[in-house]
Amino acid sequence: MLNLRLLVLVQGLFLSKLALLMLIPVVAGWYFDDHSSFDFLLATAATATIGGLLAAVARFRPAPLNASMRPRDMFLLTTLIWLVMALAASLPLVLVEHISLTDAFFETISGLTTTGSTVLSDLSNHPPAILLWRSLLQWAGGIGFIVMGVGILPYLNVGGMKLYQTESSDWSDKQVPHLKHYTRLLFTAYSLLTLACAVCYLLAGMSWFDAINHALTTLSTGGYSTSDQSMAAFPPACHWVGSLFMFIGGIPLLIFVQSLRRKSWRPWHDEQVFGYAKLVLASTLALTLFLVLSQQQHWLDALRLALFNTISVITTTGFALTDYSAWGHFAMMLFFILTFCGGCSGSTAGGIKIFRLQVAWRIMIRHLKRQIHPHGTFVSRFNQRVLNDEIVTSVLTLLFLFVFTIVVLALALALMGLDTMTALTGAVTAVCNVGPGLGDTIGPAGNFASLPDLAKWALGVGMLAGRLEITTMVILLLPKFWK
Amino acid sequence: MLNLRLLVLVQGLFLSKLALLMLIPVVAGWYFDDHSSFDFLLATAATATIGGLLAAVARFRPAPLNASMRPRDMFLLTTLIWLVMALAASLPLVLVEHISLTDAFFETISGLTTTGSTVLSDLSNHPPAILLWRSLLQWAGGIGFIVMGVGILPYLNVGGMKLYQTESSDWSDKQVPHLKHYTRLLFTAYSLLTLACAVCYLLAGMSWFDAINHALTTLSTGGYSTSDQSMAAFPPACHWVGSLFMFIGGIPLLIFVQSLRRKSWRPWHDEQVFGYAKLVLASTLALTLFLVLSQQQHWLDALRLALFNTISVITTTGFALTDYSAWGHFAMMLFFILTFCGGCSGSTAGGIKIFRLQVAWRIMIRHLKRQIHPHGTFVSRFNQRVLNDEIVTSVLTLLFLFVFTIVVLALALALMGLDTMTALTGAVTAVCNVGPGLGDTIGPAGNFASLPDLAKWALGVGMLAGRLEITTMVILLLPKFWK
Ligand SMILES: [K+]
Ligand SMILES: [K+]
Repeated sequence: MLNLRLLVLVQGLFLSKLALLMLIPVVAGWYFDDHSSFDFLLATAATATIGGLLAAVARFRPAPLNASMRPRDMFLLTTLIWLVMALAASLPLVLVEHISLTDAFFETISGLTTTGSTVLSDLSNHPPAILLWRSLLQWAGGIGFIVMGVGILPYLNVGGMKLYQTESSDWSDKQVPHLKHYTRLLFTAYSLLTLACAVCYLLAGMSWFDAINHALTTLSTGGYSTSDQSMAAFPPACHWVGSLFMFIGGIPLLIFVQSLRRKSWRPWHDEQVFGYAKLVLASTLALTLFLVLSQQQHWLDALRLALFNTISVITTTGFALTDYSAWGHFAMMLFFILTFCGGCSGSTAGGIKIFRLQVAWRIMIRHLKRQIHPHGTFVSRFNQRVLNDEIVTSVLTLLFLFVFTIVVLALALALMGLDTMTALTGAVTAVCNVGPGLGDTIGPAGNFASLPDLAKWALGVGMLAGRLEITTMVILLLPKFWK
Repeated sequence: MLNLRLLVLVQGLFLSKLALLMLIPVVAGWYFDDHSSFDFLLATAATATIGGLLAAVARFRPAPLNASMRPRDMFLLTTLIWLVMALAASLPLVLVEHISLTDAFFETISGLTTTGSTVLSDLSNHPPAILLWRSLLQWAGGIGFIVMGVGILPYLNVGGMKLYQTESSDWSDKQVPHLKHYTRLLFTAYSLLTLACAVCYLLAGMSWFDAINHALTTLSTGGYSTSDQSMAAFPPACHWVGSLFMFIGGIPLLIFVQSLRRKSWRPWHDEQVFGYAKLVLASTLALTLFLVLSQQQHWLDALRLALFNTISVITTTGFALTDYSAWGHFAMMLFFILTFCGGCSGSTAGGIKIFRLQVAWRIMIRHLKRQIHPHGTFVSRFNQRVLNDEIVTSVLTLLFLFVFTIVVLALALALMGLDTMTALTGAVTAVCNVGPGLGDTIGPAGNFASLPDLAKWALGVGMLAGRLEITTMVILLLPKFWK
């Protein structure tokens, strides 16, 4: 049986935290005098009330609350919490911007999942408090996903994440204080890195408001901007800063925490980070060479553009800098493929994640060797752990579901009348949590406002599925889950 | 150590068989008086001589020939034989058509792998003997692939094909007479079906020359035609015949043989055939409905077009009938996705093959159930066989390699200057053994003649990789293979 009381309690507690977060734009609205404070305050009050009520109801019954959770509870909890948060967090957008619930929900889920697709245009004419709220959504969604990825998904063996599990294989009550401790450390590291990023942006020439907003959306690899021109609106120094901190955003945050505790910095001990760095380096060099040779660009400009766009694509941040469709077919194809790779697991990046590709690669090599010598014994490892059959099945499931979800979503979007390019890249950009698609409608120069309502909901579900490593959400569709 | 003597002997024997096949266009050239007979005879003589020499060299040494083969021998043999056959079979094209070796090799490997991409245009102006030779290449390649898929690949556990292995797990000398027996039966069934198809085409209104050619390329799901308009050049009755025999071409041929021996017809006992039929039915119905509702077509016309195109795409035949890009984005997307599915394993169809998708699906469902109840026991079966970890790894390897090969090929083609659409659909159409791509250059209305030479070789390798279920060829790239 599902532990519904605990589910309700956790939703209530999270809603209260969300209400606290809403106080920031209340202050910002008052400071900038953009007439949004009252609406934000209204949303805060509503969220706090509902959150408090849910928590009270869950705690009310005389029987003591059973705090134990089984996998089924955890699957339902993780999916539900993102939906409930997204619904509550759309309130300010509805109240301040007077947009439909569809648009508000799309913008919010796109923010919380750090996707960064937007229905808003002419960004500089919107109230600063709204721009800050969008950035905050990405920042909060980013740390939420990291905590989920470190603390919960490994126990559920989602997409081979058991490889990143530190303790025993079962979830027990002991994990809760442990998780709380880690959450505090992760939150601190995330905040410090964000602060460092904001200071660097400020020094590189952004206004302090732009610096804060972009720091929030860079570390979370979210990609929301305060300008319609995205990163192109800022001087080159900002692009180097952005490249550095997007790259950091694609590294597992836990590595920073562990380094602080051990007082030694050795990220290369995670083979995933090594693979990630190699991929970024190789793609950047290839593209720089390509730009210098075929477009006669100065090598420093070429390096800056290649580095920024490569990292923006691999980490699925989705900041736009130049219209790289003018770079020709090789660059387009390379970026399209890199989108699927994503950054490291345990970071805010979307996509398949580097370590799954590494694991699939090693399983493949092992299988090929076995085919050559059927009676030989071949073992493959990742981070010193043996890749056992549970991991293999888990990775296969995720890869299969990943492709399947994109295919179904693309077909559904095409059926809703979207053209092939928009339907296909829209599905990819949603499920990989990238942000912009390709083509005239949803490309870097466009936005998602003109899509039919149904398509916006479908894309929203796709973003959430991508953020939840798909498995976590799809499992709820099995009849077995509810029995 | 590799058994090189046996390798050389088998190449020699196959070359002699190929020389026999070349006698057919010699006769055709003489009958049609198209001045190609002498060139074909020259090619026959050259092929027979080389084949005879190789066989003689292999048999010459005093030591008795060791007839045993280990997996390494079989991997090398299967890849090598396709390459050697393609090279020898391009001879007539070079001699008769005076085209470059690149073009001739592209056309031949495209024929033998039953891909059906062509560099020739204005087909009706070519010597009839050449048209017949192209059709024969597809027909021979088709039965060659079926025999390989039934007799060799299951023992090498290529992409989960162990599921279709009937005897013990090791290859032994006993298998050879067994394989020879089955080859005779398969060849007979294939020939009878081809004859039936030719008769039906004749009755449906084709000339007897067109009927023979299209029968050869329909049963082999190859897709070469005698007309630039492909199937659109023939009356509607021919489309129904084509649909039926393409569908049959996508069913494992062994099922017909087993039915003849058992004198009972029960193809549904193979779950793969059941899945294949369901997929064809569902897609046809969806498309018919779509055409009737959105294009106001008569239901019978709509059914004919939907059925023919669906089967042509799923079986990767690649016959063109109408420009379905005018059917809108939903149809385009659906066809693009169906291309990857392919027909049944054990047939001449390319692509991933239905049973691998079914296996991946079941493994996924089993894994999701295990995630819900970590301590439960869940077993999944396919055709009554338990899906063990060896099958899982094998299927994962194939799916991963399949995507990886397409990605690498598409990137390589883009680097050679092909536009994104041509590079991507060219890679897909080659690796899935379909034939035509999308877009102006290599779409159903175009051909591959204008591509750079390097791209033609790359596509040729892609076709061969696809035909050899990729694993068989990629394994040769491992250093371990040669140690
Ligand atoms: K993003
Ligand atoms: K074909």
